[in-house]
Amino acid sequence: MSERPSPPGFWSLLGMAVESADADGVVVAMTAPDDFVSPFGTVHGGLLATFFDTALAVAIARRLGPTDRLATHNLNVTYVAFTRERRLRCRARVASLRTTVAVAEGEITAGDGALIAKALGTFGVRRAPPSAD
Amino acid sequence: MSERPSPPGFWSLLGMAVESADADGVVVAMTAPDDFVSPFGTVHGGLLATFFDTALAVAIARRLGPTDRLATHNLNVTYVAFTRERRLRCRARVASLRTTVAVAEGEITAGDGALIAKALGTFGVRRAPPSAD
Amino acid sequence: MSERPSPPGFWSLLGMAVESADADGVVVAMTAPDDFVSPFGTVHGGLLATFFDTALAVAIARRLGPTDRLATHNLNVTYVAFTRERRLRCRARVASLRTTVAVAEGEITAGDGALIAKALGTFGVRRAPPSAD
Amino acid sequence: MSERPSPPGFWSLLGMAVESADADGVVVAMTAPDDFVSPFGTVHGGLLATFFDTALAVAIARRLGPTDRLATHNLNVTYVAFTRERRLRCRARVASLRTTVAVAEGEITAGDGALIAKALGTFGVRRAPPSAD
Repeated sequence: MSERPSPPGFWSLLGMAVESADADGVVVAMTAPDDFVSPFGTVHGGLLATFFDTALAVAIARRLGPTDRLATHNLNVTYVAFTRERRLRCRARVASLRTTVAVAEGEITAGDGALIAKALGTFGVRRAPPSAD
Repeated sequence: MSERPSPPGFWSLLGMAVESADADGVVVAMTAPDDFVSPFGTVHGGLLATFFDTALAVAIARRLGPTDRLATHNLNVTYVAFTRERRLRCRARVASLRTTVAVAEGEITAGDGALIAKALGTFGVRRAPPSAD
Repeated sequence: MSERPSPPGFWSLLGMAVESADADGVVVAMTAPDDFVSPFGTVHGGLLATFFDTALAVAIARRLGPTDRLATHNLNVTYVAFTRERRLRCRARVASLRTTVAVAEGEITAGDGALIAKALGTFGVRRAPPSAD
Repeated sequence: MSERPSPPGFWSLLGMAVESADADGVVVAMTAPDDFVSPFGTVHGGLLATFFDTALAVAIARRLGPTDRLATHNLNVTYVAFTRERRLRCRARVASLRTTVAVAEGEITAGDGALIAKALGTFGVRRAPPSAD
């Protein structure tokens, strides 16, 4: 059997969903839960990093087979602005996909389109051997 | 009043605690909850980024006043190895602290001391005006 | 007098030139000199980092006054492919420009458009006080 | 033949030399040439990135065979302070060395020990097949 495993629990915890996907990449949405909001009402930067790591991997995974695996090698996040909005979007696109390494980039925006953060990620790709069935 | 605000909810969600602190930095521990473990049993990279962001900020905050504020400008995480251990430690130290910018670095290790990930972070510092009381 | 100072010597050393500029950003070209080519004939990654640092700063500087100053806070470069081509292009665009911090991104391509490297940079902006003349 | 190839020309251009090496890493020195100094007298950040890329690779290469090859996957540089000093030192150490990926970190200091910049780098390792001779 070669189904992609179900996503980790934080997908539902964060109300995470792929909103759209095209040849260029994906748009993923999530809602920051209370536990990841700072005392000042702003969404925690670590949660935004989690969001990037996930959305970039989703963008790459769409171009891989269901049993290929991804491992984040490096994630670089640059924070542009604080946000108090809970519902955020991440547009992620694949910049390069080679046999064993993939590079993807993303940006998180608030509802009005304001840029919150940008990320660049490098992922190791382990391609599954061709299935026998 | 100038007390440091209570930490966001994910501190208790992750069982996060400062284990030790010295002139050089801090050691913070956390326990990965089920929701942030991948289908393969490994701790999610985004959670490790959250852990770094928090521990690096704690290391810097110890050298600031209680009402000074920090904002992550850039967080760069390099993942070295997967881990299935839930209880992890992050050693964080301040590399540079200037009037408006701080740089800190950290490493996350598993129980046996194995290196899981390393990070370098740049933070903006907003120093509170001297209090009147 | 408020003229922008002449660029450092490596601009001519690298045959660096702004090829085009529009509302979105700039395209800068350079030619790798022999001294920055590896024994294997590939352009050295450090030179590509220099190229990014310069092109991203140029993209931001176009939106600033001639006496405003920029300082690179963080530069993150992800290398996608080796190149033996000496004449390279970097497209750089400003992702965010605020009072004291700017974020820019870039990509370096070879003659055939092949992606060589991508970068994300954060810069401190020091705006000059309004001139008296 | 399996000798390590001679270093690229910028080693002599920059007066680059390994000053010391121990189990923990290496110290490399370089002198910034006029062409890489800004109009304000400060050493160009791109040159510092070149210095990091080189020193980190040297630290890793010491643990590899002479025909193994390294490719920088990601280099993240955080700039802490400007420097007008031309003779700089980079201490580089290997954080992790696995079969195909290595992680190294470094810091550049001026003559008085002042921290100028820090870097974290990820490198791909291609190990040469055992030689037949």
